[in-house]
Amino acid sequence: MSPEEAIAAGPNVTQWDAVTIVGIGFMGGSLGLALQRLGLARRVLGVGRDQSELDEARRAGVITEVASSLGSAAEQSDVVVICTPVGSIADLVVEASRSCRPGTLLTDVGSTKAGIVAEVEARVSASTYFVGSHPFVGSDDSGFPSARAGLLHNQWVVMTPTPRTSLVAVSAIRGFWESLGARVLEASPEEHDMHAAEISHVPHVLASALASATPEPALALAASGWRDTTRVAAGGTDVWTDILLANGQPTSMALDRVLEKLSEWQAALRAGDRETIRQLWNSGKVRRDALGS
Amino acid sequence: MSPEEAIAAGPNVTQWDAVTIVGIGFMGGSLGLALQRLGLARRVLGVGRDQSELDEARRAGVITEVASSLGSAAEQSDVVVICTPVGSIADLVVEASRSCRPGTLLTDVGSTKAGIVAEVEARVSASTYFVGSHPFVGSDDSGFPSARAGLLHNQWVVMTPTPRTSLVAVSAIRGFWESLGARVLEASPEEHDMHAAEISHVPHVLASALASATPEPALALAASGWRDTTRVAAGGTDVWTDILLANGQPTSMALDRVLEKLSEWQAALRAGDRETIRQLWNSGKVRRDALGS
Repeated sequence: MSPEEAIAAGPNVTQWDAVTIVGIGFMGGSLGLALQRLGLARRVLGVGRDQSELDEARRAGVITEVASSLGSAAEQSDVVVICTPVGSIADLVVEASRSCRPGTLLTDVGSTKAGIVAEVEARVSASTYFVGSHPFVGSDDSGFPSARAGLLHNQWVVMTPTPRTSLVAVSAIRGFWESLGARVLEASPEEHDMHAAEISHVPHVLASALASATPEPALALAASGWRDTTRVAAGGTDVWTDILLANGQPTSMALDRVLEKLSEWQAALRAGDRETIRQLWNSGKVRRDALGS
Repeated sequence: MSPEEAIAAGPNVTQWDAVTIVGIGFMGGSLGLALQRLGLARRVLGVGRDQSELDEARRAGVITEVASSLGSAAEQSDVVVICTPVGSIADLVVEASRSCRPGTLLTDVGSTKAGIVAEVEARVSASTYFVGSHPFVGSDDSGFPSARAGLLHNQWVVMTPTPRTSLVAVSAIRGFWESLGARVLEASPEEHDMHAAEISHVPHVLASALASATPEPALALAASGWRDTTRVAAGGTDVWTDILLANGQPTSMALDRVLEKLSEWQAALRAGDRETIRQLWNSGKVRRDALGS
């Protein structure tokens, strides 16, 4: 089914002959499972650096076949989704675009967008159907064995088209995500990166700073509060170094707002100022309560 | 059974005729359930401000009877445990000590200790068997309906004796907590407050600051990372205002160490310094991984 046919058919009935997933980890694996479980793709081709891991993923049913190269997979596919760490995404999109047929949809799931999208747009032809995407689901470094077909169900995917992006590609890639059960928002790459910094990257930095600043003797007493607040600090070092480097400026700006709030806290704690402590606490509680558990 | 008999019998067979719990919330209710479930107390007397809630707790089996006053409950009891917000604990210990028999064990579960212990010691006679305690278990504001008999099993309780504390009281109250399945550490009230600031109160401040500093538009995208990192910010405003006010100085000192780490993060993010970002991330990850999930 071509992107045009997919749009005509509506977002819920898109069915692809072949989808390539590059990087079969937790996210790539979950996509592979979902595409099969929902009957959306006849073939799911896996591309990766570790051939024996890809074989395992195929045996586990996460993909239907192991591709010999990105080029050969791309030329056979209707959709190519790059699910690798952010530092490698632009190169892989460019590489896929060189082999794929006209109209093949290219997207990614990287946690940062401005750098990737700018680099891709500088290097591929205007007729390439690429739109950056980022599913906002909890990260997990446990690889495809933890993959879940329902991972995207009712979760947000932010797509980041630019003035240069083909509207046909935007509609078709929106349909791809919606067919997987996701809800789609569009934002500019820069808006996306600011939101991602606020809702994901700054929490990761706070969790990490708390984990490393907590003195060893107190650690034995860690109950659920410390554990929850630091949980995301266990994320993979390569993955998070890449993300925080790529999104350094927005993260730094969003961190500044948290630091301003923390210096209000410092002043109130030092002064023993009950009314300010209560107001500060309450403003956080109202925000948190609005979201539910 | 007197404290002396309890010590002679060993910590695991302590059985009390009557235990009074003041404040039947999540923690007080869990203590009441555990004392009955483990056959440690024949009577569990509940004291609180809201008589109809106490009646409900009795009907739910969390306590065995509703006491008409703290004085009358204390004079009948072998152990009195104060489970109210930290701001009220010292007064209630003093009040209980005026009615109880010689040798009655008095303790509390407050999250801060130095202020409470100093105030109690200034106001009760040296023969009073009071030792401050703090079980390090996740806080929960959902009241006695969420109480769990197994809450303390394998969890740490920090006891905070001082040079003035009777060693008999320390042993007997240790036996009380151990008979409930808890592991007991002893620390000075000041050491306790520093550890509590590091492992609990600073995480609460960070969670709260993050929750209130996250701009509204990004909130819709909150996935498990933001939710986990801010979860404890939903704690009750009265409870947390009291705790953070009572433990303001240690919390401020511990927060300073996190702020130092965050300014290293700020510098590395602004400079796009890959090696420092990697080192900072890794130092938090190592600390977090050591603890498990």
